[in-house]
Amino acid sequence: MNTPNRLWRIASQPTDAVSPRNFRWSEEPIPQPREGELLVRVVYLSIDPVQRYWLSPDATFGPPTQAGMPMPGRVWGVVEQSTSLAFPPGMLVAGPGAWAERCTLPLAMVEPVPAWPGVPLLAHTSLFCMQALTAYFGLLEIARPRPTDTVVVSAAAGAVGSLVVQMARISGCARLVAIAGSEEKCRWLREQLGADAAINYKTSDIGAALDAACPGGIDVYYDNVGGETLDAVLARINAHARIACGGFISHYNDGGHSQGIRNFQMLALKQARAEGFSCFDYVARAEEAFSNIRRWHEQGRITSRTHLLKGLGQAPAALAGIFAGSNIGKTVIEVSPPPVENAA
Amino acid sequence: MNTPNRLWRIASQPTDAVSPRNFRWSEEPIPQPREGELLVRVVYLSIDPVQRYWLSPDATFGPPTQAGMPMPGRVWGVVEQSTSLAFPPGMLVAGPGAWAERCTLPLAMVEPVPAWPGVPLLAHTSLFCMQALTAYFGLLEIARPRPTDTVVVSAAAGAVGSLVVQMARISGCARLVAIAGSEEKCRWLREQLGADAAINYKTSDIGAALDAACPGGIDVYYDNVGGETLDAVLARINAHARIACGGFISHYNDGGHSQGIRNFQMLALKQARAEGFSCFDYVARAEEAFSNIRRWHEQGRITSRTHLLKGLGQAPAALAGIFAGSNIGKTVIEVSPPPVENAA
Repeated sequence: MNTPNRLWRIASQPTDAVSPRNFRWSEEPIPQPREGELLVRVVYLSIDPVQRYWLSPDATFGPPTQAGMPMPGRVWGVVEQSTSLAFPPGMLVAGPGAWAERCTLPLAMVEPVPAWPGVPLLAHTSLFCMQALTAYFGLLEIARPRPTDTVVVSAAAGAVGSLVVQMARISGCARLVAIAGSEEKCRWLREQLGADAAINYKTSDIGAALDAACPGGIDVYYDNVGGETLDAVLARINAHARIACGGFISHYNDGGHSQGIRNFQMLALKQARAEGFSCFDYVARAEEAFSNIRRWHEQGRITSRTHLLKGLGQAPAALAGIFAGSNIGKTVIEVSPPPVENAA
Repeated sequence: MNTPNRLWRIASQPTDAVSPRNFRWSEEPIPQPREGELLVRVVYLSIDPVQRYWLSPDATFGPPTQAGMPMPGRVWGVVEQSTSLAFPPGMLVAGPGAWAERCTLPLAMVEPVPAWPGVPLLAHTSLFCMQALTAYFGLLEIARPRPTDTVVVSAAAGAVGSLVVQMARISGCARLVAIAGSEEKCRWLREQLGADAAINYKTSDIGAALDAACPGGIDVYYDNVGGETLDAVLARINAHARIACGGFISHYNDGGHSQGIRNFQMLALKQARAEGFSCFDYVARAEEAFSNIRRWHEQGRITSRTHLLKGLGQAPAALAGIFAGSNIGKTVIEVSPPPVENAA
């Protein structure tokens, strides 16, 4: 084993907060791709809140995650060995991999990374990813903001939320209110992403802050967190409000002990709609979303921000860190250096 | 005051369960209609769960209900005095009246009751009313059952629920499960209304009963009650489930002290939709709904059932009785005898 493959395996499934103790560092022989597989050297590894959900024993979607398995995660990397002429060695690809320096990927699950001028590989991890589809379709298909609407976005400095905020601004809503967990995030949301107001939920009474920020009530809520924030928004929705249920970060770590939502009946009282969705329902329309996002990016109307950490060793702490609010934008691990022509 | 007008005035707004103590019997001179009004002798008075909601100090819709006011309620009756040639004395009309023997109604709010063969006036109170529009549009526009769906209806023996059950059967769902509060109601739902299964929530563990009645999960839930039943349904929804939020009877009487909904996040996990609605949003399409309901009624596919109580004196106990589950079908007070040609 001259050059081993280093990876993180699952040590245990967390019952409450995910922590580095739930992962085990492992050094193993580099795997050999079987027929229909590629061997990929990982450049970037995506660290996402949903990975905490995958680890739940009662998860109803996502890859299997039993103790002993490699921890799954989306990767962008370089083909090292291939069994397909369509994916030659050296090609940049993305796919569902693992927290590993190298991993094998089934050809059916791999996509080539297009070489777009002005879009380094790192920008692909935040703009042309599942989170971007989640933001795009959740906002534009589920929530459907109108020009007179007040739009509220939670976890607004995160990978999904920061795109939702920018897309809501582009879509022309009347008032845009972002909720995040630090003054630095709030400043970024107001000064760089165009939010009319930003609420630091860690230092505010969320209800009073929403009253002040949304004097005309709330028409659209893009919910990434659930919990008390959702309840406070529900209490302030206007007739025919729409809530895009994108995630519920506040519950992922709570072991099912969260307080319930007390204002559900506001849906009935306000003829409002709360709707969940999955980016997987919109895969057939990914081209549409990505071409719009690419255009907005070229026009300078949408920016890519990553919380980049170097070295695979950082992955467990990075996942725990998302729940502590340590990231602005998408959390990405640089596992190995990007090809020079694809660097930012 | 030879023949007085008897009516119920609001004595106080209930903070928890509504009771006869919240109303005060009054005998007053018969009111004189002003320009643009009719005087109507009330034949039937509708008693509906939403009347409890109207009495809440923080109600956001419905007629105003301060102490001292006549208690509002929908009435069907006979015009006694008119200021309009379009509504001559003797005509049968319906409109937003009061818990009274006689009341004045603004012409703009009054509708003539059509003389349809085979439809006595009493059937109008349950089949061609706001509750029927609520059932029709909530089921067919909001929930949209498909032929492969398992449909669950709560408060299924009530005025709205019993119509939803019959319309769901007509719409061709695969499996139809009704939830109600007595064995008698459950038997009626199974044997007369076509439910495949009926759950007595008062004697069942609702979760276990839903597991048994819905082995393939739940695709559509027409919710009239909120609370624990809603939570139990949410835990068992299938992907792309739809919840029509028609009401939340279980909360009307609780003074805001109910436990929250713990499974809201199932909307996100199952890409499901929960949507409130108001029959008032569909008034322009009432003709469509009523013509279909009339046809189904003629075909014997939809039946009218009223919980008929004689005498205005019964109204307060009848409203309290709805929350105790004493009614099957629509609760109606016969305030005065119907014209002979309109009797059942």
